[in-house]
Amino acid sequence: MENVLITSGSQQALDLIGKLFINAGDRVLLEAPTYLGALQAFSVYGAEYLSVPIDENGLRTELLEEPLRSGPKFMYVLPNFQNPAGTTLSEGRRHELVLLSEKYGIPIIEDDPYGQLRYEGEHLPSLVVLDRENLRRDDGYSIGNVIYLSTFSKTLAPGLRLGWIVAPPEIISKLAQLKQGADLHTSTFNQFVAYEVARDGFLDKHVKLIRQVYSERRDVMLQALQEFFPPSVTWTHPKGGLFLWVTLPEGLDMQAIFKSALEQNVAFVPGNSFYAHSNDGHDNDSREGSRHMRLNFSNAAPEQIQEGVRRLAAAVKKHLTGTTVRLKLPLGM
Amino acid sequence: MENVLITSGSQQALDLIGKLFINAGDRVLLEAPTYLGALQAFSVYGAEYLSVPIDENGLRTELLEEPLRSGPKFMYVLPNFQNPAGTTLSEGRRHELVLLSEKYGIPIIEDDPYGQLRYEGEHLPSLVVLDRENLRRDDGYSIGNVIYLSTFSKTLAPGLRLGWIVAPPEIISKLAQLKQGADLHTSTFNQFVAYEVARDGFLDKHVKLIRQVYSERRDVMLQALQEFFPPSVTWTHPKGGLFLWVTLPEGLDMQAIFKSALEQNVAFVPGNSFYAHSNDGHDNDSREGSRHMRLNFSNAAPEQIQEGVRRLAAAVKKHLTGTTVRLKLPLGM
Repeated sequence: MENVLITSGSQQALDLIGKLFINAGDRVLLEAPTYLGALQAFSVYGAEYLSVPIDENGLRTELLEEPLRSGPKFMYVLPNFQNPAGTTLSEGRRHELVLLSEKYGIPIIEDDPYGQLRYEGEHLPSLVVLDRENLRRDDGYSIGNVIYLSTFSKTLAPGLRLGWIVAPPEIISKLAQLKQGADLHTSTFNQFVAYEVARDGFLDKHVKLIRQVYSERRDVMLQALQEFFPPSVTWTHPKGGLFLWVTLPEGLDMQAIFKSALEQNVAFVPGNSFYAHSNDGHDNDSREGSRHMRLNFSNAAPEQIQEGVRRLAAAVKKHLTGTTVRLKLPLGM
Repeated sequence: MENVLITSGSQQALDLIGKLFINAGDRVLLEAPTYLGALQAFSVYGAEYLSVPIDENGLRTELLEEPLRSGPKFMYVLPNFQNPAGTTLSEGRRHELVLLSEKYGIPIIEDDPYGQLRYEGEHLPSLVVLDRENLRRDDGYSIGNVIYLSTFSKTLAPGLRLGWIVAPPEIISKLAQLKQGADLHTSTFNQFVAYEVARDGFLDKHVKLIRQVYSERRDVMLQALQEFFPPSVTWTHPKGGLFLWVTLPEGLDMQAIFKSALEQNVAFVPGNSFYAHSNDGHDNDSREGSRHMRLNFSNAAPEQIQEGVRRLAAAVKKHLTGTTVRLKLPLGM
């Protein structure tokens, strides 16, 4: 398998990619918001960030040309049921994104931890597959532009620390060398365990089961949000994955809301953590981040979800009094 | 355990330490020869090296003051049954080393993967323990100077990827943050496995067993070396661990010997890999490295060891003809 590398979870894949591609000051193009752990992995190597906003159809590809022209080292994208927003990149935008990557010669890191956890709609082709199809049509490209990451963490168990990278052999061989310096190899014991549960059919059955369970929990959370939150608050409708993204009216003190929530024994991840903080003085991202909450619907039983959303709504409403006259805002991510 | 961090093998400990301490161009003080994997881990971060030779009593501490005055970021030392040389740092030198570390404020990375695999002599105090004792005597030091690394890889199974770092809480908290970016956490599943086999007594029994097996294999290898090699070839007498270090007369072509050995279906690791290659034009280390072979005595059955050493000696002798009149050389590492 010269184009696959097994990693210690897909977090390690992000670290190795940072180590290989990023020199201090290099730019990385990211979705805003994006996965916190990717920011942690890349920032260690001195990455600077170009953030492009997403909406309900994922990364807004119509905004990409300008930042791509400024020459980032790579784009980092979560096309399926994004962490934190729960959004999915539409099929049209997938084609656009791959073509832009090829046009500017900027590789895509496609992070796909949740792709198998789809609860509605049809599976969409991954970027790495679209890129391969383009390669086959056009001999002008000798090497793929997409590096694909996935993991057993969401389908089997995060405690196994098993992920994988799919990339052209030239890239894999460099990553494998860096991996040797980083932790020699990924636990062979755990690879055997994963092989056995995949081979005997447990993994397939388990994925079917958790799809059903998580899908039900997502529906319960969506309904509870509808029931308990005022119309000035909006949220995404994830077609899969683990998370949804709540948007509050502007001008609230998210720290104070977080504190009120904790007093009610309910927690969320404040949106701020999911935005790259630019070093150039612009702080739009962190202002934008302060309007959002990431909620996880996969982890609690339906009754707990309902009660949790009720308490969270109570905590938010305490701080909404000054803003209740505002009109309902568009999702605007 | 605010002063312990579980790592994905002790290779990851080396990587995290490199990430935390080394900026491009920083110097690291090493033993010559030293563990190849440490060189790989540190070089990724742009380390330069100060190499200090070892002899049968380990790192030659009498040569340390000058390189310490030039301000390396840390010293990297394997006190017990060193990889590759199999040598052990004497008790007197351990005290000297810790005092020098304190005097110059240069931390020691104490790598101890083999400490439990002692086949003769008394256990010697680890550097981290000596450092703590000094701390207790002298209030002038507020933080320990030694970062201690070990692993289950040599006592239980390398495939579990379980190691640990012992360090002052301030250092552990920084390393833990870097570890989160590198692979989130070490497999909890494997930590449970190790906990169970330690708790039910298997680990202790297993270590006793492998001590007996490896000790016998070491003796077989030492005897075979004595039997088959000419007096111009010398080797270390490891009191534990997995490796011994063979020194050939000067002026041989190690590449040609390696090729002859492979033709006999026997292999070794050429010594060259275990020396830092300095960037300042000096090449003493790699000339020195070309006289050495690392042999592993833990992995083969006694009969295979005997036959292997016989073949290796035959391969070496083919290239010794021009040098047989030389006097036996001192060990001189």
